[in-house]
Amino acid sequence: MNFLEERIVKDGIVRSGNVLKVDSFLNHQMDVSLMEEIGREFHRRFAQKPITKVLTIEASGIGMAVFVAKEFGVPMVFAKKSKSVNIDADTYVAQVESFTHKNTNQVIVSKKFLNSEDHVLIIDDFLANGCALKGLISIVEQAGATVEGLGIVIEKGFQDGGKIIRDMGYPLESLAIVESMDAETGHISFRRQ
Amino acid sequence: MNFLEERIVKDGIVRSGNVLKVDSFLNHQMDVSLMEEIGREFHRRFAQKPITKVLTIEASGIGMAVFVAKEFGVPMVFAKKSKSVNIDADTYVAQVESFTHKNTNQVIVSKKFLNSEDHVLIIDDFLANGCALKGLISIVEQAGATVEGLGIVIEKGFQDGGKIIRDMGYPLESLAIVESMDAETGHISFRRQ
Repeated sequence: MNFLEERIVKDGIVRSGNVLKVDSFLNHQMDVSLMEEIGREFHRRFAQKPITKVLTIEASGIGMAVFVAKEFGVPMVFAKKSKSVNIDADTYVAQVESFTHKNTNQVIVSKKFLNSEDHVLIIDDFLANGCALKGLISIVEQAGATVEGLGIVIEKGFQDGGKIIRDMGYPLESLAIVESMDAETGHISFRRQ
Repeated sequence: MNFLEERIVKDGIVRSGNVLKVDSFLNHQMDVSLMEEIGREFHRRFAQKPITKVLTIEASGIGMAVFVAKEFGVPMVFAKKSKSVNIDADTYVAQVESFTHKNTNQVIVSKKFLNSEDHVLIIDDFLANGCALKGLISIVEQAGATVEGLGIVIEKGFQDGGKIIRDMGYPLESLAIVESMDAETGHISFRRQ
């Protein structure tokens, strides 16, 4: 097991309905040393790519994306969730369904912060059905920029998001891929990578 | 002028209605070196306090709060905005009016992550009418924890939030206090500190 899988086994809590709670270290309380280690690991995995921007989506992605951006020495941009229908012309927009909240958000990025010269590394904390990532990919492509890779902290391997993104041809790296979870025993198995 | 005031003058944009846009470096695209400098500066200002947790509110506060927490070597907790009315018993709740969005959000923190032993440094990007800070203070007090201080990146000195918080007796440090802005000339004046 790598550092993240070890931490998930130690502090993650499995709930019924395939819910994995990691709010004690990842997405409500954040262990900043772990965020730094995540930043270094994604840098190691994408070091050969000419990254100019790290892109994530609010809110919990921000805490890890800043440390990835720090390692690459580039700015971090976070997409904002917006209920507003009147988006101005200076904004890239994508529709994103939320698995957790069972609704659809518009996700927006100002055109000022992504352009056709950019080489983008997309970072997010969770990958389940892939809707958030597809929204971020759409925004990068609207900008005419290049998706150099996607870095996910925890992928739910039993949902289809990872397969969809890899089948689209994008380099996707997940630090932990959960193959199955058992809410009764608390057991978590990871995909061998 | 300090490093932040210089950056605001260089890259901030004044819009009518006392709007200061800092989205190119602070709250949409983030300059990570600046975030690190903000982290070091708040650590310097609160170094004598026995901080055990850094508390902020999603979303843009997260990008600076993680670097403050890194300097102190403590976890960062971010309060979540929630529309949900059925908050469970394991959650601290405060009501927060949004100046920007003209609505009221519930702000929640899990009871697991704040208790009466904690000494909390509250961090946020903007202070205007003080509603968000009052909500975060309320949450710390519900936990029986101690508010050791509040660190704000940009305070709008012409609104009353800063005075309200200081009159409540809390140590409040703002890296830049904007006294006035002129949307026509783009001029920004800061309070001498």
